[in-house]
Amino acid sequence: MDIDIQLIEQSKIDSVDFNNLTFGRTFTDHMLVCNFADGKWQTPQIKPYGPMLFEPSARVFHYGQAVFEGMKAFKDDNDDVFLFRPDENFNRINKSAERLAMPHVPEDVFTEGLKKLLEIENDWIKKGFGNSLYIRPFIIATEGAIAASPAEEYQFIIICSPAQSYYAGEVRVIFAEKYSRSADGGVGYAKAAGNYAAQFYPTSLAHKQGYQQIIWTDASTHQYLEEAGTMNIFFRIGDKLVTAPNNDRILDGVTRKSIIQLANDNNIEIEVRRVSVSEIKEAARLGELKEIFGSGTAAVINPIKGFKHQDYVFELPELTNSYASLFKEKLLNIQYNKSEDKHNWRVKI
Amino acid sequence: MDIDIQLIEQSKIDSVDFNNLTFGRTFTDHMLVCNFADGKWQTPQIKPYGPMLFEPSARVFHYGQAVFEGMKAFKDDNDDVFLFRPDENFNRINKSAERLAMPHVPEDVFTEGLKKLLEIENDWIKKGFGNSLYIRPFIIATEGAIAASPAEEYQFIIICSPAQSYYAGEVRVIFAEKYSRSADGGVGYAKAAGNYAAQFYPTSLAHKQGYQQIIWTDASTHQYLEEAGTMNIFFRIGDKLVTAPNNDRILDGVTRKSIIQLANDNNIEIEVRRVSVSEIKEAARLGELKEIFGSGTAAVINPIKGFKHQDYVFELPELTNSYASLFKEKLLNIQYNKSEDKHNWRVKI
Ligand SMILES: Cc1ncc(COP(=O)(O)O)c(C=O)c1O
Ligand SMILES: Cc1ncc(COP(=O)(O)O)c(C=O)c1O
Repeated sequence: MDIDIQLIEQSKIDSVDFNNLTFGRTFTDHMLVCNFADGKWQTPQIKPYGPMLFEPSARVFHYGQAVFEGMKAFKDDNDDVFLFRPDENFNRINKSAERLAMPHVPEDVFTEGLKKLLEIENDWIKKGFGNSLYIRPFIIATEGAIAASPAEEYQFIIICSPAQSYYAGEVRVIFAEKYSRSADGGVGYAKAAGNYAAQFYPTSLAHKQGYQQIIWTDASTHQYLEEAGTMNIFFRIGDKLVTAPNNDRILDGVTRKSIIQLANDNNIEIEVRRVSVSEIKEAARLGELKEIFGSGTAAVINPIKGFKHQDYVFELPELTNSYASLFKEKLLNIQYNKSEDKHNWRVKI
Repeated sequence: MDIDIQLIEQSKIDSVDFNNLTFGRTFTDHMLVCNFADGKWQTPQIKPYGPMLFEPSARVFHYGQAVFEGMKAFKDDNDDVFLFRPDENFNRINKSAERLAMPHVPEDVFTEGLKKLLEIENDWIKKGFGNSLYIRPFIIATEGAIAASPAEEYQFIIICSPAQSYYAGEVRVIFAEKYSRSADGGVGYAKAAGNYAAQFYPTSLAHKQGYQQIIWTDASTHQYLEEAGTMNIFFRIGDKLVTAPNNDRILDGVTRKSIIQLANDNNIEIEVRRVSVSEIKEAARLGELKEIFGSGTAAVINPIKGFKHQDYVFELPELTNSYASLFKEKLLNIQYNKSEDKHNWRVKI
């Protein structure tokens, strides 16, 4: 595959303090841009990261045709660079694109393009547990036309942002009772931009009550726990894990499916089934609810300290041998090439 | 209020064929841009319409913080220019913004800014029934930061596009059975960009079956008819009109509320209440369903020729004295200053 490459003259890497990174605010020197026009994807370009020109009438601004992915590159002690299950992200961006009536990104543009970009940005990928390069591929509708129908022109872009190990602080959650994230028959299973903005206002109301995040429930009854804003959710009742099944409201998380596999590999009982609010409250009351944790690419595993539902408030116990830390360690060891990788999740660049 | 004004050197108006306009593809010479930064709205600018620079990490591309409005300016035979209920659009864009955790646009920026822009673009507003200038105010999150939380920087932009009378062709609709537009507790009542992209794929499936649009039903049961992609929907059963009530899934349309008022003014019986699919099918079977029409700023009133639900297909009768044409005429007469305007809907610029 051809790629037009235009390199920067002077890297800005020396101006970056890699020990003080705020998530998602520092970008590497280059980005990949590939245009879709005249019914096909054009030659991808790698060029200096920077502001780009868009029509103010670009459909993405008006009709929200925008999907994205989130992945990470890891460097091991031998300076080898790895991705984690990138085929999952490639498949998912196209599933998302399809639901928003956008064209699929070709595999070579995604895979070869990303590989080339990572080779160029190699110095931005820092060694050491927790350090990574966060990768953000996205597709947006760029055609300038304010009519509510799918665009004829798009851009596929990959930008990269160096990240340290992500600590979200202590996270307590509210179980949603009124607001919702997505509908049956809607776009909740897609990584569609509009799904995120929809959560900000209810989340800001949770903040005011001292809670950092919301665990969304099904919009029809608010009786079943689904997922958080950017994480899938696991509950540990006794020694058993439970997590909601995928449906058209839930993002099919790569971390989630890896945890399900690791649980099976490690003989940890896991049930993938509907999880009701009342069951979790009951388990809490009986002292059987041991852990709640979220899973996602950014934080890997995020333990949850407590939850609130209506007037009921619960603090999770402090555990020494938590599943959260077990899975986090196992995942990081695979990602940083420190352990065996029997499912071939690691892909060397 | 201060506005920085930078005029174009040479208008492109002479290159525009005003008798052959495609909706939303031709833009006037200028646009209004107002930045939100450091916690406040800065001085608005009116400047040449054209591509603008955006960070590829701008949150609008990733998290969908984007809301918009649609309104029209009309010119009467004396060259006076009018807006139709612009206060409704002003209030609604801020209701939308609030739901997406975006800052409110100040009234003077919206109102004075638009007025000034329309004065400058006066030649683009053509006389004659059906001609108008379509106005698209919108707010987008421009801050470059890929973290799923509300932005700190926004732009409020107004672009304008000359329009002829909008004929959507013959419209037949499918009543939604599987896909949905919005959830209870979601953002359906906001004019949020993401709501539109979510409809494109299901609508493309309808196209394949020979139907142009979908009438969305409630996501929980698919038993109640709500609205179409960019129109509210009215049903005429016998001589009575029915339309769905506003709720958090439905856009509170300006045209819809004007029709409800006009129906009352003209002693046409109208019920604002839940409308079930089974009721409409039953009325169709009994020969009592006389009309279905959509209402919205772009098309004003759009008569619907037929509908499909599951295996049931129905063609609406041809009427000579339809409510659709009655309301369309009454609305256009008010908009073009050809009739009395007892509710003060017309606002002279
Ligand atoms: C809504 C939502 N749920 C869950 C996840 C976790 O998915 P993954 O493990 O693939 O990062 C994400 C993405 O990060 C998300 O945006
Ligand atoms: C979803 C939706 N419903 C209804 C309408 C009609 O609203 P209005 O009459 O204010 O144009 C619109 C906008 O045009 C819309 O986008």
